[in-house]
Amino acid sequence: MEKKHQRPIAPRDEELIKNLLNRTNRIEGQIRGIKRMIESDEYCDDILTQIFAAKSALDSVSKLLLKHHIHGCLIEDIKRGEHEVVDELLLTIGKLIK
Amino acid sequence: MEKKHQRPIAPRDEELIKNLLNRTNRIEGQIRGIKRMIESDEYCDDILTQIFAAKSALDSVSKLLLKHHIHGCLIEDIKRGEHEVVDELLLTIGKLIK
Amino acid sequence: MEKKHQRPIAPRDEELIKNLLNRTNRIEGQIRGIKRMIESDEYCDDILTQIFAAKSALDSVSKLLLKHHIHGCLIEDIKRGEHEVVDELLLTIGKLIK
Amino acid sequence: MEKKHQRPIAPRDEELIKNLLNRTNRIEGQIRGIKRMIESDEYCDDILTQIFAAKSALDSVSKLLLKHHIHGCLIEDIKRGEHEVVDELLLTIGKLIK
Repeated sequence: MEKKHQRPIAPRDEELIKNLLNRTNRIEGQIRGIKRMIESDEYCDDILTQIFAAKSALDSVSKLLLKHHIHGCLIEDIKRGEHEVVDELLLTIGKLIK
Repeated sequence: MEKKHQRPIAPRDEELIKNLLNRTNRIEGQIRGIKRMIESDEYCDDILTQIFAAKSALDSVSKLLLKHHIHGCLIEDIKRGEHEVVDELLLTIGKLIK
Repeated sequence: MEKKHQRPIAPRDEELIKNLLNRTNRIEGQIRGIKRMIESDEYCDDILTQIFAAKSALDSVSKLLLKHHIHGCLIEDIKRGEHEVVDELLLTIGKLIK
Repeated sequence: MEKKHQRPIAPRDEELIKNLLNRTNRIEGQIRGIKRMIESDEYCDDILTQIFAAKSALDSVSKLLLKHHIHGCLIEDIKRGEHEVVDELLLTIGKLIK
């Protein structure tokens, strides 16, 4: 299947991109922290706490992306009379519900 | 509250540590990949897919840690007649169920 | 705050309603089964398995509702130039991501 | 495979059983409420909110069961020098992490 979209239908503004990059930079730092905890043989529960924090930070990035996706791309898509993004969104939500 | 454990009660063997480090190295690479996708303004759904993959890889690390924690630390703790790890474990499971 | 919608913006057809009711009837049966397992003091893990099954059945109902909601109500709402449903949907998705 | 345990290894006391039954009775009522909402064609988001509430109530039952299971059955099992419950618990936790 040919990929339908290479770029967001509604462009992300600079502020959003900066916000997303700040967050993923921080997450990269969290993952390196987890690596160091494993290397220095720290206690299981402390490492798990950091893993939960990193997952939760990834969720914040997902929410920001989805917010722009729905407010921007989805509305634009529907106005154009296309409903591709709607079907994709349902697949994505399907992965979230479990 | 004073921290009860600095180190795992039952030591992690080399193979487990290596396995955990390989996995977290790979996750670090995934996070850098997500950063690049944001920088090059890729499509929302493709970035979300990568975020879901990174979260699922973090879950595998959690499971490995918990497996050792329960088979090693918890059993050792109970044999010693202490039940600290049991209470901690319930808190951790409480965070998982939601 | 005044409630904005009493009814779905796009009506649910009979087949969907029947499907939803069949599923919730079955879930009601599952809950009664869990009650009986508790009353007859069955093994913890077996009860947990039934609870996971009931949660997963509830998720299927959520997905069916959301599918109709997005394909029906959301598209209708955006075509009318209103975006209320979009904001609501983001709140709902926010509850799903965690 | 023969079923290993028909009953909890450590018996549940009356108060716990009563607590569990009260909660599952309430959940049964919630499911019947959801059925009525579908029958009277209520708004999608309102039904979803009730479904999330029922899932969260099921989680509370799971936590109560697991608490007794770990504090009672698991500790008893390990003291007897058997580790069956440990392996089962890891499988159950594996279902929770995802």
